[in-house]
Amino acid sequence: MNFAMIRRTLGFMLLFLAIFLLVPLVTSLIYWEKAGLSVLIAALLAGGVGWLCILKKPKKREIYAREGFVIVALCWIVLSLFGALPFWLSGEIPSYVDALFETVSGFTTTGATILPTGEALEALPKCLLMWRSFTHWVGGMGVLVFVMAFLPLSGAGNLHMMRAESTGADVGKIVPKMRQTAKILYLIYAAMTTAQFLLLLCGGMSVFEALNTAFSTAGTGGFGFKGDSMASYNSYLQIVTTVFMLLFSINFNSYFLLLRGKCKDAFNAEVRTFLLIVLGAILLISLNIFLTEGYGYGFAEALKDAAFSVASVISTTGFVTEDFNLWPTLSKTVLVVLMFIGACAGSTGGGIKVSRIMVLCKGGIYEVGRMIHPKQVKKIAIDGRKLEHEVVRSINAYLVAFILVYVISLLLISLEGYDLVTSFTAVAATVNNVGPGLGAVGPSGNFAFFNDFSKLVLVFDMLAGRLEIFPILILFSPRTWKK
Amino acid sequence: MNFAMIRRTLGFMLLFLAIFLLVPLVTSLIYWEKAGLSVLIAALLAGGVGWLCILKKPKKREIYAREGFVIVALCWIVLSLFGALPFWLSGEIPSYVDALFETVSGFTTTGATILPTGEALEALPKCLLMWRSFTHWVGGMGVLVFVMAFLPLSGAGNLHMMRAESTGADVGKIVPKMRQTAKILYLIYAAMTTAQFLLLLCGGMSVFEALNTAFSTAGTGGFGFKGDSMASYNSYLQIVTTVFMLLFSINFNSYFLLLRGKCKDAFNAEVRTFLLIVLGAILLISLNIFLTEGYGYGFAEALKDAAFSVASVISTTGFVTEDFNLWPTLSKTVLVVLMFIGACAGSTGGGIKVSRIMVLCKGGIYEVGRMIHPKQVKKIAIDGRKLEHEVVRSINAYLVAFILVYVISLLLISLEGYDLVTSFTAVAATVNNVGPGLGAVGPSGNFAFFNDFSKLVLVFDMLAGRLEIFPILILFSPRTWKK
Repeated sequence: MNFAMIRRTLGFMLLFLAIFLLVPLVTSLIYWEKAGLSVLIAALLAGGVGWLCILKKPKKREIYAREGFVIVALCWIVLSLFGALPFWLSGEIPSYVDALFETVSGFTTTGATILPTGEALEALPKCLLMWRSFTHWVGGMGVLVFVMAFLPLSGAGNLHMMRAESTGADVGKIVPKMRQTAKILYLIYAAMTTAQFLLLLCGGMSVFEALNTAFSTAGTGGFGFKGDSMASYNSYLQIVTTVFMLLFSINFNSYFLLLRGKCKDAFNAEVRTFLLIVLGAILLISLNIFLTEGYGYGFAEALKDAAFSVASVISTTGFVTEDFNLWPTLSKTVLVVLMFIGACAGSTGGGIKVSRIMVLCKGGIYEVGRMIHPKQVKKIAIDGRKLEHEVVRSINAYLVAFILVYVISLLLISLEGYDLVTSFTAVAATVNNVGPGLGAVGPSGNFAFFNDFSKLVLVFDMLAGRLEIFPILILFSPRTWKK
Repeated sequence: MNFAMIRRTLGFMLLFLAIFLLVPLVTSLIYWEKAGLSVLIAALLAGGVGWLCILKKPKKREIYAREGFVIVALCWIVLSLFGALPFWLSGEIPSYVDALFETVSGFTTTGATILPTGEALEALPKCLLMWRSFTHWVGGMGVLVFVMAFLPLSGAGNLHMMRAESTGADVGKIVPKMRQTAKILYLIYAAMTTAQFLLLLCGGMSVFEALNTAFSTAGTGGFGFKGDSMASYNSYLQIVTTVFMLLFSINFNSYFLLLRGKCKDAFNAEVRTFLLIVLGAILLISLNIFLTEGYGYGFAEALKDAAFSVASVISTTGFVTEDFNLWPTLSKTVLVVLMFIGACAGSTGGGIKVSRIMVLCKGGIYEVGRMIHPKQVKKIAIDGRKLEHEVVRSINAYLVAFILVYVISLLLISLEGYDLVTSFTAVAATVNNVGPGLGAVGPSGNFAFFNDFSKLVLVFDMLAGRLEIFPILILFSPRTWKK
């Protein structure tokens, strides 16, 4: 294990964190807020420790798969530990565990909060609200991917780091060089964020509001800054956000292909399936809430709210216009299923990912075929590309690991004795990086009532969900730390 | 597709059904009940149609994998359609869909009922109560396995039929000949049922009660004949039933090995894991209900009730002594997890099966190892036996198919708009062949309130659960019916 390189990469990452903290620092200067002081201290601490870590150059620069995964997992943990400081030092979130929960929820683009909704949230210093949303933007595309875009980190571990930090099973390099790929991805990301920012400005949002909302949407995070999330905004702003939540759920490679004029490649099987699921779910839910008595929706309104909720949940953003916890059971069930499906691979969204679901389903159908005709040897194919057994096997293992993490977390959360729906969806909302669940953790609730132990379990789930289980599990394997 | 052989096998199966119906017929003669007439009509109908089906001998006797699975799936459907007649003809269950639900629940050893608990259940004619319990016994080990033990059915399809009807992924022949294997399994089954019957008689049950309880336990079904299931019986009877529920959850091959003195082989990894899970769950739940305020359990009582519930749920029997729907969330969550784990392969119990869970978990651990050391090529092993990739892959496909059936059923059931816990556990209790769930389908409730559509969905789930998904799915594949 090349500990020197792990230390050095962590150091660089902390230096970048110090730079990221300039965003809330500038905000605090604009609004002249005292909380800016705690942001400054956090930035100095992160910068100082980061500088100490990179002082000594490592002798060997090679890192391998193992180091790659460990670096990613540790980076995210250290990042969260330092990122929580502004909330805690300012005294706005007095408990450090709460501050950590909020920060992990930010970086992992979950959007689950321990802060109360309503006026208390709006009373928070603007610089901290900005930091919350900005953590989404930083975490969405990946911190190490960002570091990689600017610094030459060497070794085969780069690919593994990028794999571990990106979403979905199959990270292709869009151009031969890793660094170039990282840069292109961030460029597309920044351009799309800017586009949404401008469109929101046109709709009447202030610069602060538009920036916040764009950061939260881009990372598919979902931290709002208003007491009612997005409910009080006009339809135009809600529809813009709906569209961008969906856009950020699509593989960024598709945009690159689109820019190069390869339309057919851009609309690959995963994107098509994703759009079909979205359309189906919107229709089903809008009909369900329109036709069920007692909800009083007009059809256009039902369609708009259903579209917003579906986009918010399948993109795992977690913005809210309507309290879907009050919707009929069918709609709630559809939303819970969407939580697990999640976005496309290579997007900023969470969940199991559409491409994984596709491979898993095709594997099931394949097996039925093999029972009818035992001698068939065809491979599973997606977009005409045959999948190696190794890919299929690793996706299956992912599913199993996912279920295990889920069940163990559920049991640990159940220790507190809240009702089944709350426990079940609290884990679902965190491990899929969605944000709100149902029951007590529904859109109008928050996660504050859990005890510190449960909060740490959910922190683990958010990290496991964002890094897609294995990099975090690897930390616990004794074989990782053997010579 | 060899339709002639399918017809012939279905015919034999119906003849056996006519013979099975002698059990309630004799009961009706003993208690001189009018409902016996409907049993007689059902037996004559089944016998008559069966006789018509075997009149014409097939030209080709060969059947292959495809036919094997189709035969098993169709057999179970036809068996249930005819087996429901006594309930329906007697007028005791006026709706045929309800009667079908009850019968499928019986044969699949689910034990979910549309009959109300309490006195109304006890008022049912004894011959029908006996038929309900006896369907558990017939379905537990498999109807076709029974037919096979007595009739020489030829062809390679036999092995596939046995595979499709037995539980778990890996059916070994315990002796080289299929017919011999079937006979030995049924002998062990009958001997154990008799042992429990005698022990229950010693505890003060009447012959009718003891026979009923033994049939229900042996098939791990769970239909009771008392309004309160097993709650009003003394501790001795409850403990005997606890022990036998666990015994019937263990691979029958283990008993055969034990009889031949191969103790070490009998206590294989699956049995050891199963016992560990059972012990862990009993300890956890008894501590939980003992320590949580407001339940007023003594420790011995908590231990006894926890053991009964754990045995009842993991064996997927579904007998009840305490309404576990009222227990704290942790206990309920543990029970729901146990529902999915289920019994050992090759037992009469349902669920995913312990050996499958083991393979799935080992697959997950294997993948973590492969991420640390990408070049490792070791295979997954259980009991020192290396598993072929095909076995692992088919178990993974099983998991996916299971989840798909689960999610689609849940969505269909949600159309009715009952609460999430009820919908979620109604599907869990049927697809895992447990019986009672939580919420409205908890131990003190029943499935009568669902509409016919939902009941048919649950009927499908019970069959899919008992036949372990694929044989039922195969019926829907167009490739099955191609030449």
